Amino acid sequence: MNEFSLIDTYFKSPARSRADVIFGIGDDAACLSVPPDHHLLVSTDTLVEEVHFSSDWDPYDIAWKSVMVNVSDIAAMAATPSWISLALTLPALDSHWLNRFSQGLHAALDTHNIALIGGDTTRGPLSITLTIHGLAAANKAVKRSGAKKGDSIWVSGELAAAALAVNYLHDTPCSSAEMLILLDKLQHPTPRIDLAPLLQRFATSAIDISDGLSADLQHICKASGVGALLNLNTIPIHPLVKKYMGEGAVNLALNGGDDYELCFTIPQQEQSNFIEALAARHLICYPIGVIEKELGMRVYRDRPHDSKALTPDGYRHF
Amino acid sequence: MNEFSLIDTYFKSPARSRADVIFGIGDDAACLSVPPDHHLLVSTDTLVEEVHFSSDWDPYDIAWKSVMVNVSDIAAMAATPSWISLALTLPALDSHWLNRFSQGLHAALDTHNIALIGGDTTRGPLSITLTIHGLAAANKAVKRSGAKKGDSIWVSGELAAAALAVNYLHDTPCSSAEMLILLDKLQHPTPRIDLAPLLQRFATSAIDISDGLSADLQHICKASGVGALLNLNTIPIHPLVKKYMGEGAVNLALNGGDDYELCFTIPQQEQSNFIEALAARHLICYPIGVIEKELGMRVYRDRPHDSKALTPDGYRHF
Repeated sequence: MNEFSLIDTYFKSPARSRADVIFGIGDDAACLSVPPDHHLLVSTDTLVEEVHFSSDWDPYDIAWKSVMVNVSDIAAMAATPSWISLALTLPALDSHWLNRFSQGLHAALDTHNIALIGGDTTRGPLSITLTIHGLAAANKAVKRSGAKKGDSIWVSGELAAAALAVNYLHDTPCSSAEMLILLDKLQHPTPRIDLAPLLQRFATSAIDISDGLSADLQHICKASGVGALLNLNTIPIHPLVKKYMGEGAVNLALNGGDDYELCFTIPQQEQSNFIEALAARHLICYPIGVIEKELGMRVYRDRPHDSKALTPDGYRHF
Repeated sequence: MNEFSLIDTYFKSPARSRADVIFGIGDDAACLSVPPDHHLLVSTDTLVEEVHFSSDWDPYDIAWKSVMVNVSDIAAMAATPSWISLALTLPALDSHWLNRFSQGLHAALDTHNIALIGGDTTRGPLSITLTIHGLAAANKAVKRSGAKKGDSIWVSGELAAAALAVNYLHDTPCSSAEMLILLDKLQHPTPRIDLAPLLQRFATSAIDISDGLSADLQHICKASGVGALLNLNTIPIHPLVKKYMGEGAVNLALNGGDDYELCFTIPQQEQSNFIEALAARHLICYPIGVIEKELGMRVYRDRPHDSKALTPDGYRHF
């Protein structure tokens, strides 16, 4: 099997057709149609073995997570994912590995109605680079840079289960059922595409929590030229993290990555409308603090006046 | 320096602004505008050390070639390149390397007025994945699949100098000046964006010659459901390849990759118009054969009736 029959066998998926794919895999480039009055969103994420996933993972899960972390970037813009291209570097042709990987890939893409439009396969150390495309009505994508003084800061779900799985699983005396729950949070993140309509309507800024809440909130603060004050008591933490990490739970919630929930800001005057809209859709999000004029991030437990500085300590590649 | 300051230092280029980039590097995704009545072309190429480039190359040249092989895919569609995203995996932070790489990257992008819209930097074995975007008027992109019986087959320039450089440089008794010429062909390919208007007007199919003329022409034949008959005497071969490879020159032209010239087909009734249009633009292309109804590829030297089968032997990753 060569590169071309590999692509034919594992990655051509005629089943998943979208009317906006004029033509996909099989030419020098894919040809796509962006609807009028829409903007195109583009994001790229690379996943490297032993950095983003472990070599003992089922290739199905590696593919699933690769897609979902990319979908999460589109969710953070309040857009809808549409197309993806795959650059796959493989040490060797392993048909079992490719079979499982392509099953996970197509399952993940189908979940979000995303078309695989092309890519490249090369020989080398295992790595997966996906470039995802999304669509949003013109000027409706939500940036990091719109947070304003007085906006409330929200997160879309419980944090730190994935970080517990990646960092402390071997030291944690949890049951095998609990271990499966934690591994599931690590391997199968759920990008919050469901929040896109509400974020487009209400949010002044948004980001996905991939490096850790403190590091990612800092991106919003820096891009917006503002600061943040967080109430540690209100940060939603996964129950198993509370159970096993005790006092360290909140630190893991602040600095652990891989959650792929969203952090976003809502203007004070829209807060009650936002809460009503969440309830109407049976969605739960958590207010955790407020945007301040003064630069920097601060946290407190009981009294805002007893706050202390928060220094991000998220994952660093270098 | 962390991932974020690395991006700020080396890859943010406010100088290169395009009106169709609503916002680029610095958010979860870039936001782009596709003009009305245009299609978007997307292609991805990964370059891996010791497969696509040698570790002793100047990082400037690694970046330059990475961009140009991607631009070549857009040229093969007869489209215009617009935006690129970069996924860079690095073993370590080496500021000299990054400095030279980013200089080569920005110089190559500037040559074609391409905006760097985002990417990802991760730690791992060196590899470079670029996803390039191009634009073409709706339904004007040229596919591989339109070749018809009777169309003439053309290539856009002399072949095999890059293949000589990559495979035989150490065994070839060429002068240092000749060696520089050959290395330049390998490291600094010139994607044939200049042919886009003519291909849109005349060509029934097109592909870029990255894997070797025979392998890439076979892609056209398979996609179009046709065969090809080539006159070996008419295949344009770089003079240094003729000088040093003798009888083997034509084999290198057929099977050596990395030329990044284009191979395309022109209907018989448009041939004289195409030749006139080439001359008007001072461009030289070479007719090398004809598309046939019978599947498969055949070659001859003097008499078409004395043809023999051609089996592609281009580069294979696996």
